[in-house]
Amino acid sequence: MGSSFGTVFRTTTFGESHGAGVGAVVDGCPAGISISLTEIQAQLERRRPGQSRLTTPRQEGDEVEILSGVEAGLSLGTPIGLLVRNLNQKPGDYRQMANIPRPSHADYSYRMKYGVNSLSGGGRASARETLARVAAGSVAEQFLRSRFGVEIIAWVSQVGEVTFELPEAELEQLSRSAVDAAAVRCPDPDKAALMTAAIEKAAAEKDSLGGVISCVCRKVPAGWGEPVFDKLDALLAQAMISIPAAKGFMLGSGFAGAAMSGSRHNDRFLKDGDRLTTATNFSGGVQGGISNGQLINFKVAFKPVPTIGKVQETVDYEGNQVLLKGKGRHDPCVLPRAVPIVEAMAALTLADLALRQRGNSLF
Amino acid sequence: MGSSFGTVFRTTTFGESHGAGVGAVVDGCPAGISISLTEIQAQLERRRPGQSRLTTPRQEGDEVEILSGVEAGLSLGTPIGLLVRNLNQKPGDYRQMANIPRPSHADYSYRMKYGVNSLSGGGRASARETLARVAAGSVAEQFLRSRFGVEIIAWVSQVGEVTFELPEAELEQLSRSAVDAAAVRCPDPDKAALMTAAIEKAAAEKDSLGGVISCVCRKVPAGWGEPVFDKLDALLAQAMISIPAAKGFMLGSGFAGAAMSGSRHNDRFLKDGDRLTTATNFSGGVQGGISNGQLINFKVAFKPVPTIGKVQETVDYEGNQVLLKGKGRHDPCVLPRAVPIVEAMAALTLADLALRQRGNSLF
Amino acid sequence: MGSSFGTVFRTTTFGESHGAGVGAVVDGCPAGISISLTEIQAQLERRRPGQSRLTTPRQEGDEVEILSGVEAGLSLGTPIGLLVRNLNQKPGDYRQMANIPRPSHADYSYRMKYGVNSLSGGGRASARETLARVAAGSVAEQFLRSRFGVEIIAWVSQVGEVTFELPEAELEQLSRSAVDAAAVRCPDPDKAALMTAAIEKAAAEKDSLGGVISCVCRKVPAGWGEPVFDKLDALLAQAMISIPAAKGFMLGSGFAGAAMSGSRHNDRFLKDGDRLTTATNFSGGVQGGISNGQLINFKVAFKPVPTIGKVQETVDYEGNQVLLKGKGRHDPCVLPRAVPIVEAMAALTLADLALRQRGNSLF
Amino acid sequence: MGSSFGTVFRTTTFGESHGAGVGAVVDGCPAGISISLTEIQAQLERRRPGQSRLTTPRQEGDEVEILSGVEAGLSLGTPIGLLVRNLNQKPGDYRQMANIPRPSHADYSYRMKYGVNSLSGGGRASARETLARVAAGSVAEQFLRSRFGVEIIAWVSQVGEVTFELPEAELEQLSRSAVDAAAVRCPDPDKAALMTAAIEKAAAEKDSLGGVISCVCRKVPAGWGEPVFDKLDALLAQAMISIPAAKGFMLGSGFAGAAMSGSRHNDRFLKDGDRLTTATNFSGGVQGGISNGQLINFKVAFKPVPTIGKVQETVDYEGNQVLLKGKGRHDPCVLPRAVPIVEAMAALTLADLALRQRGNSLF
Repeated sequence: MGSSFGTVFRTTTFGESHGAGVGAVVDGCPAGISISLTEIQAQLERRRPGQSRLTTPRQEGDEVEILSGVEAGLSLGTPIGLLVRNLNQKPGDYRQMANIPRPSHADYSYRMKYGVNSLSGGGRASARETLARVAAGSVAEQFLRSRFGVEIIAWVSQVGEVTFELPEAELEQLSRSAVDAAAVRCPDPDKAALMTAAIEKAAAEKDSLGGVISCVCRKVPAGWGEPVFDKLDALLAQAMISIPAAKGFMLGSGFAGAAMSGSRHNDRFLKDGDRLTTATNFSGGVQGGISNGQLINFKVAFKPVPTIGKVQETVDYEGNQVLLKGKGRHDPCVLPRAVPIVEAMAALTLADLALRQRGNSLF
Repeated sequence: MGSSFGTVFRTTTFGESHGAGVGAVVDGCPAGISISLTEIQAQLERRRPGQSRLTTPRQEGDEVEILSGVEAGLSLGTPIGLLVRNLNQKPGDYRQMANIPRPSHADYSYRMKYGVNSLSGGGRASARETLARVAAGSVAEQFLRSRFGVEIIAWVSQVGEVTFELPEAELEQLSRSAVDAAAVRCPDPDKAALMTAAIEKAAAEKDSLGGVISCVCRKVPAGWGEPVFDKLDALLAQAMISIPAAKGFMLGSGFAGAAMSGSRHNDRFLKDGDRLTTATNFSGGVQGGISNGQLINFKVAFKPVPTIGKVQETVDYEGNQVLLKGKGRHDPCVLPRAVPIVEAMAALTLADLALRQRGNSLF
Repeated sequence: MGSSFGTVFRTTTFGESHGAGVGAVVDGCPAGISISLTEIQAQLERRRPGQSRLTTPRQEGDEVEILSGVEAGLSLGTPIGLLVRNLNQKPGDYRQMANIPRPSHADYSYRMKYGVNSLSGGGRASARETLARVAAGSVAEQFLRSRFGVEIIAWVSQVGEVTFELPEAELEQLSRSAVDAAAVRCPDPDKAALMTAAIEKAAAEKDSLGGVISCVCRKVPAGWGEPVFDKLDALLAQAMISIPAAKGFMLGSGFAGAAMSGSRHNDRFLKDGDRLTTATNFSGGVQGGISNGQLINFKVAFKPVPTIGKVQETVDYEGNQVLLKGKGRHDPCVLPRAVPIVEAMAALTLADLALRQRGNSLF
Repeated sequence: MGSSFGTVFRTTTFGESHGAGVGAVVDGCPAGISISLTEIQAQLERRRPGQSRLTTPRQEGDEVEILSGVEAGLSLGTPIGLLVRNLNQKPGDYRQMANIPRPSHADYSYRMKYGVNSLSGGGRASARETLARVAAGSVAEQFLRSRFGVEIIAWVSQVGEVTFELPEAELEQLSRSAVDAAAVRCPDPDKAALMTAAIEKAAAEKDSLGGVISCVCRKVPAGWGEPVFDKLDALLAQAMISIPAAKGFMLGSGFAGAAMSGSRHNDRFLKDGDRLTTATNFSGGVQGGISNGQLINFKVAFKPVPTIGKVQETVDYEGNQVLLKGKGRHDPCVLPRAVPIVEAMAALTLADLALRQRGNSLF
């Protein structure tokens, strides 16, 4: 269970890194939407290992295939099947660790859950599963952009102790190409250089770093999000924390807002043509769980990658003390590659709420 | 839509503050569980307005009635209907504001969503809806405690700029009575006094304060949580951010973990009888979205209450500039009353995952 | 589990005959729909016991209360809570049977399922639960009629061995008042008299009769129903077979169609203004699970009521042979009272598919 | 929407006959179940076109591939991806009919639903989609058999006007090999010969025939099925009517039961060791929507295949009169091939209810 997301625009993913492939079925994408395979592939490239020296040199060469639901470039309204074959299976890397649960990995909790000890370990917890999210998210994004003009841009705003806060005035203009200017995907060149240096230092030390990804969603119409449990921000929180290694989520003022007074934090209304806008946006574009037409902006904290080259003291399943040393090739910092994953999960959340809102407004 | 939570243990809530009542239907509670009305009522009392001078003096006197699903104190396995009548309806307080969307309230976004402008305003965004969550959450908690021994304790760890970090060693012993020793629900007497003073100052200034609630879940067995989208932490994030005024969620190391190195952050395993434990718990009790048997601990940030006595400049729906002054009686700080709501949402999340795990393990 | 129906227009029911009441929460009804309490009550009256000498003389006097979701006669878009109190609880009637599972009742299977033996017996299998369906179904019907002009009419087409086939030409004109002209709810006076006589004879013999209810749904637009599993006819089948005592469902030609040739059964198209119509309607208004704009007509078979006055040989839970004699007052034939239940379930099915179709058609 | 079935054991299918392939994702199969690819393939062979002269001579050669969720022959507890490539795409056969909605096909209703006119026509309504159901159903069946001993056997009990009623005493012994002894899949040799002759006659006349499939589920434990809407029989009804061309469903006495008296129809209890059994089984193994431990038996009516060789008068989308003549190679009667589809849908229904029951019974 648990491999589906969304109520009306609903995505189901499948696949382990040691099986034949990973993929997704997107059920509920409306008919007649132009779906570009090239655009899906482009987002996969941004997630791909080996794209820069900052990431693992493993070459996955992930080619996505559309199995169904699209004909002559247009969605049919039926389930869109997406498949990426696994080419680079090296179970040997993992087999030797089969009796040692890797610290802060999912091996142990998966074994406690399923009662099996597979090569795939916590196979669905593998970063490779996120391929399917990115592919499905690109379909969602294409739908959102073509029908509503929605734009979703994520970037790296922290690596280790290097932080970067994008000035609020630049949220409206930020582009993916600006984000991609540096391999580390921080749009500020100076901070990008510092982040890069931090990652290279961690790599040299056979260690890893965490960080924070920020994201802005633009041109989201007012009225998306459902009351009570399926609030826009609540589902975004689920979507983001469901990404491997995510440990925190905040919208708008977030944890900083907790220290503010109401008179400072309240976003008072201003006239803006025939609609209303707000003077500030501490709310992060969501009021009562429903979009209010302002920018939706949020942050996601990621822990450092648990796979490190450094030797670690730990125990095997029998409780014997062992020294564990990482053998596979892994990222010292996943933040740059996680940018398209955050965008994908935001798109999947918004696409579902866009369609759910259709049922509320028959006027 | 959006008023249901959970897949197997599934709660649906209903009710606006201006209607006949609020309530919940809990479908999926197993049969034969002892359900105490007194215990449900006790949690409602902790959420009740007017319980101390720190909260609104409105007296709601909320009595919960069990409509179905319980016979002779035992659950039948059928839907448990819960109802709390609205006694203290004062639509007059709100009617005058019907043409002015309150800043940082849900009035505007609800109107954009539904195309209606009701007395109930953003009625489902009202804090009163949380009554239903607390009642349903108590059912979930009684189930979890009686079958698994699970304990859920939340407390106030920040009010405005006053912060309190419970020493990790005390997470195992903290009790609800320790939390309730001070009306502000911070278990540290000194910090509680500072928080109380901060709230009283805000009240005197007709302003409001936000804060942070921390929560620990003890004795959660390893293996709860579903891979990919319905991870334990992802559903907790949804549950918490769905609470009115919540702006941020973090589990374990959270945002602080983003600045740590992997070698420091990894929770190495230790032998603990015939199971494994971990030397540290930066993971917050969840690995790969699945509980690992350690303490689950998380934090939720709340913005300051948007309803304040201070005069606010804003505009009405037509865009005319107006001065808005709060008339109703409202809390200067909801944090103390939100403690049982956080506990309730944690219980609803865990109860569902407990039952979902039953389907994974047929051994 | 299992007490919810629908994906977007979603109804959850609760309540046993021996608890405080039965009710429903309808989540997903669009805002701004005129909801008449009188109309809900009118459908409940048609379901009410004691309305004629053909039904049980028990007087339930079921008054429905709207708890939420409706203000000034208009839906708010939020969950509509509906409650009918239980007034006529006579557990004494049932208590003596607590150790004897009634033949063809749900007592035994409920006990095997839940491991409890409650006064409520198979409480959710009780006919009283259908009150909640009728109330929720009336909300759905009011939505469907006001927005789409949909009309749903059911009638009794068989009681015991007396059958009545409405001429196809009259499907367009049939009204509820014509159905209600006879207490047995068969619109043909002669057949109604025969059915009435059959029921009176069964009552005199302390026996019971089954029968068939037919239903037509008019003015359903083409395009409702989802491919594969959530076909309009598949969900109708679930809806109908979920009614207590239902044993069979067929759409259009149904079982008779199995004996026909394709060349005879195919509904060839004709021009009808700027749309197409079909020369025949063996399909019953549904092709590939999706409405085609023709009349939707179907039948539901009901077994005879299992509660009879006649003495029955059976065994108790320990396997001891016993003679069981019905004590409560029960219907010799539920068909007349099941007419509004069939209409309600059809309305709940169509309302959900109407809203789900909104997400498919963004043009 | 609508391409998923089940709540805990949940199957999602995808694919059109004109795309790259059809497949399914089965999420919720417990870990540690032995899954045989050979057995899946064997059921696909029984559904395959061209297996006898009674079916279309098209050779599809459908090879299923397991993409995920199974390692070393055991389920991992994670989603099981299943894919069958489309090899025999001949869009030319259909292209000429693109402007003519085929009578009693889904072309017209799909176009009204989605607003697109694809080569795939009512692509998800194609019989080819059922491949995915059979593959997923085989997984469900392997789970049910290995954990509970459940056996599911379907057979052809009517073709056109030739009917066959299996004596009730033989329900316990009937095997798939007995069913498969004749290509028409009727276990009675004489009736099988008559059915075969009827199909050959229809084929010679370029016409088609419908029929009825019967099914028995053995060794289903008491207690499966959820109250109210997700009753075992209600979900079976949805499952069966969701099969292309199905027009009717009945359980146990079905429509015949409508004519019986209660005293005749009631299944009185008998002692059977330490459990109870029933003297008759008019209920078809389900009481109040919950299995009672008796045989579950039901029937599904199928209309004649709408694709026929005979010339048909109809109109195109513009309303012009045309003569339509079938070009592709099609089955004169799908009943023999639908036998494994009925079995698959029964298995998917029962597997889900088996796992849902786990949550009800914590004792």
